[in-house]
Amino acid sequence: MSYYEYPLIIKKLLVQTLYRQPTTEIVYRDISRYSWMKFYERIQRLANALESIGVKRGSKVAVIDFDTHRYLEAYFAVPMMGAILHTVNIRLPPEQILYTVVHAEDDVVLLRDEFLPIVESVASALPTVKAWVIMSDTGAMPSTSLKPVYYYEDLLNSVSSHYDFPDFDENTEATLFYTSGTTGLPKGVHFTHRQLVLHTLSVAAMLSTYPSTVNITSKDVMMPLVPFFHVHSWGLPYVAAMIGNKIVLAGRYDPKIELELIKKEKVTFSHMVPTILHMIVNHPEVENYKEYLKNWKVVIGGAALPRALALKAMQLGIKVLAGYGLSETAPVLTIANPREDMLDWPTEKLIDVITKTGIPIPLVELRVIDSEGKDVPRDGKTVGEIVVRAPWLTKDYYKDPEKTRELWSGGWLHTGDVAVVDEYGYIKIVDRIKDVVKSGGEWISSLTLEDLIALHPAVSEVAVIGAPHPRWGERPVAIIVTRKGMQVTEDELKKYLEGYAESGKIAKWWIPDRFIFVSEIPKTSTGKIDKKVLRDQYKSLF
Amino acid sequence: MSYYEYPLIIKKLLVQTLYRQPTTEIVYRDISRYSWMKFYERIQRLANALESIGVKRGSKVAVIDFDTHRYLEAYFAVPMMGAILHTVNIRLPPEQILYTVVHAEDDVVLLRDEFLPIVESVASALPTVKAWVIMSDTGAMPSTSLKPVYYYEDLLNSVSSHYDFPDFDENTEATLFYTSGTTGLPKGVHFTHRQLVLHTLSVAAMLSTYPSTVNITSKDVMMPLVPFFHVHSWGLPYVAAMIGNKIVLAGRYDPKIELELIKKEKVTFSHMVPTILHMIVNHPEVENYKEYLKNWKVVIGGAALPRALALKAMQLGIKVLAGYGLSETAPVLTIANPREDMLDWPTEKLIDVITKTGIPIPLVELRVIDSEGKDVPRDGKTVGEIVVRAPWLTKDYYKDPEKTRELWSGGWLHTGDVAVVDEYGYIKIVDRIKDVVKSGGEWISSLTLEDLIALHPAVSEVAVIGAPHPRWGERPVAIIVTRKGMQVTEDELKKYLEGYAESGKIAKWWIPDRFIFVSEIPKTSTGKIDKKVLRDQYKSLF
Repeated sequence: MSYYEYPLIIKKLLVQTLYRQPTTEIVYRDISRYSWMKFYERIQRLANALESIGVKRGSKVAVIDFDTHRYLEAYFAVPMMGAILHTVNIRLPPEQILYTVVHAEDDVVLLRDEFLPIVESVASALPTVKAWVIMSDTGAMPSTSLKPVYYYEDLLNSVSSHYDFPDFDENTEATLFYTSGTTGLPKGVHFTHRQLVLHTLSVAAMLSTYPSTVNITSKDVMMPLVPFFHVHSWGLPYVAAMIGNKIVLAGRYDPKIELELIKKEKVTFSHMVPTILHMIVNHPEVENYKEYLKNWKVVIGGAALPRALALKAMQLGIKVLAGYGLSETAPVLTIANPREDMLDWPTEKLIDVITKTGIPIPLVELRVIDSEGKDVPRDGKTVGEIVVRAPWLTKDYYKDPEKTRELWSGGWLHTGDVAVVDEYGYIKIVDRIKDVVKSGGEWISSLTLEDLIALHPAVSEVAVIGAPHPRWGERPVAIIVTRKGMQVTEDELKKYLEGYAESGKIAKWWIPDRFIFVSEIPKTSTGKIDKKVLRDQYKSLF
Repeated sequence: MSYYEYPLIIKKLLVQTLYRQPTTEIVYRDISRYSWMKFYERIQRLANALESIGVKRGSKVAVIDFDTHRYLEAYFAVPMMGAILHTVNIRLPPEQILYTVVHAEDDVVLLRDEFLPIVESVASALPTVKAWVIMSDTGAMPSTSLKPVYYYEDLLNSVSSHYDFPDFDENTEATLFYTSGTTGLPKGVHFTHRQLVLHTLSVAAMLSTYPSTVNITSKDVMMPLVPFFHVHSWGLPYVAAMIGNKIVLAGRYDPKIELELIKKEKVTFSHMVPTILHMIVNHPEVENYKEYLKNWKVVIGGAALPRALALKAMQLGIKVLAGYGLSETAPVLTIANPREDMLDWPTEKLIDVITKTGIPIPLVELRVIDSEGKDVPRDGKTVGEIVVRAPWLTKDYYKDPEKTRELWSGGWLHTGDVAVVDEYGYIKIVDRIKDVVKSGGEWISSLTLEDLIALHPAVSEVAVIGAPHPRWGERPVAIIVTRKGMQVTEDELKKYLEGYAESGKIAKWWIPDRFIFVSEIPKTSTGKIDKKVLRDQYKSLF
């Protein structure tokens, strides 16, 4: 018998592209341009190169870089040889970057020359790293105190262009990276080959089998604008590899360069956080690129897609769609594809749909559950936590059994996000579970209350927290900074919110019991409202 | 730890459709019409019903029916409860149907009333069958000698509408059916849940992520015209379930009814063998349906799509595309999606592409190899056998280790089909391996030679076989019946084929060594040329 047990491993994603469109290009700014066939030759060289400096099955190879063709090569070569790709989050503070490399026990680091100064200063604290490989756009090896050190291109040129990527168990680890919690140290999440292959198939299906303004086919030219170090750039480089898209890599993000690449390389598909889209649509020269932007389809995630931003983008001819996921979930869980019949809706109404958190992609089982574990009704009002099952969720937090237990409580992955579900099944995130007010077994969205209170003309800033309450467990309390020279009373604000309760926007029992006027609201180091401090401050209010 | 190990099982395909478009319809002629949500209720009832008559994990449930909503229910309920669905090929001769039910050791048979006479006559020879369930469009139980016997609808009404479909190992068997070889007894092939889920994802991706005239999205209304007993109706009912298509079921095939359903139910997507399309496009009333046919997309498989048929369909506004697969391969291996740049080609040139055997769908590794196991060049001329690897190929022929060894020789599934590959990677089947002429280690396509010789005005009928040759192993010999009242000589035919050799259509050494003129060519019982008899007749020619 020689039946072939076909494993779901990353190398299989390339089969059809290499067969069907080997000459389609991969472009990195104006620095590099080659075909998928050449890419395949280079990843074979990279595998031989890494093997020559000691990388084996199970070794960990870290990458510290912006989005380059070399990063894309590592995305495939490292896991395809059976090693584990650690995509280092270069946006973390240096001491946290150091922490992740130490915690991951990385064996080899592929390092962009620009990051040499930071890394050299901490290299002595990285005892597991056995080799450094320097990547540079200059074409020359910089001088460095790191050792042993190699130059990426020299290493590739010194080895054979043939490497037989092996078959192995599809449950082999492929990637590892760290998610920064708002509190505490970064937590490691990791994914297997099987998980990434299934994520790829499902994301591709979601983005193509539903009629939508934003879809993807092999004709599209993809420019990822989610960094490669950020949750597999949402898995879309793997989707592009399977479908055979032309890929355009933007390096370090710069809106002017992105606009130029859209024009020059005829980019038709990108994905990004709202901030990046905001920078592009508000670039002073954006009007000059309208001709090219009208062919540009954009998936937005990482944070809610603001209605105003969606509208602004649409006015420029850009097609936008929101999606949602977490580092823990590879990441994609939902995309806000409109339903067939919604495509005929007027823009104003359709925009409510495409800016939602979305509906689950194929194979994702998603529930929004209340504090008793029951599904909330599809009423657009009742809030519950989003819990999920899918074939691509992290099995655990790396070396952290305690946090893992919380994550996987009851056999469902707990996202920590709190949402409502509308009559069509679209979910909309309204809060983080740690900020939600738990009153009498029901949940109240602090963000929804904050949004409404902030609309009052006399309110400059507002935070809503749950304060411990002897009867209800918690009751909402609003902390308010009034606008300079303006005044408002507790009674007026209550009456104001009663208006929203009457129109069905919120339930009547959501209205805060107390409105407290202060001159300043405490903030975290990143400028966000520090609800932890507030909760502590008002813990004995009732 | 309560990490959820997500199995790739059929019930997961329904998750998104039940979430997103539970009200989309499933229609069976003018006999039944209900929603996917109602479908889900009915498959829960069916599972309870089957359990009440003894069906357990691993039981075999056979279905003998045309394409009805009840058959679709069995497609899901039976495997989803952990039992095995045996889709009985009702086109086989009765004694072979009997053989397959005995060989499969079926426990329960779901039987359409129209087949009662045949089945009753052989029921005593079916000792493993513990219960019969009669399905009927009349709404009433017919009288029958079978026992114990139940009426499908009564059984469903007698049980609870709630059933918890369990999780289990994704490698659990889901389906079993028999493929009729041209010689010998039918061979059983079987597939697991994992295989069918992956087949579904890949077929959906292929039919949607490539720009093509024939694609599928959730907007499409699918009317399968490949019988449900034939290789999972090419897996497309599972694709429809995942995407959430409206499904229209045609029952027993009848071109007039199909045309009416296309009109009434707004069918936009079907799949079928060329014969069915031929019957539809040549129906005397077809012109009356042109308005509806222009929205109809058709995938053709099971046999090559003749150019003339494709052209005729296109003239009616129908969009067509060829695909290819085997019973052993679940079935889909290739689809002839044009490349992006080909979509602008003139019809005459594009038709050459869409009538080819196609290119591999995602995850399919396909090679065309010569007698030494080497890949043939992409020259459109050199012939080799198609061998494949994919995550959805039958592990073995059911209870037949010897035939399994041949099938899986060398770790690749041998299709027995012989093909050429063009410069773009599109394959085109030119012969069956048993008919190919093996000359000096190289292969000659008997079908290609027959096609060319048949074009000669004096030739009425032709068969090309390989005759044993002391030097070359085999050499081609053409057996010819001339057209009434016409004459042609061996030399004239050789010269005629030399013309094709000069234009590059065939190699010069392909020209048969001998042309033998006969009054009649022997045929099999199904009217095909009996090459076995011919090979025996001319075994001592050289």
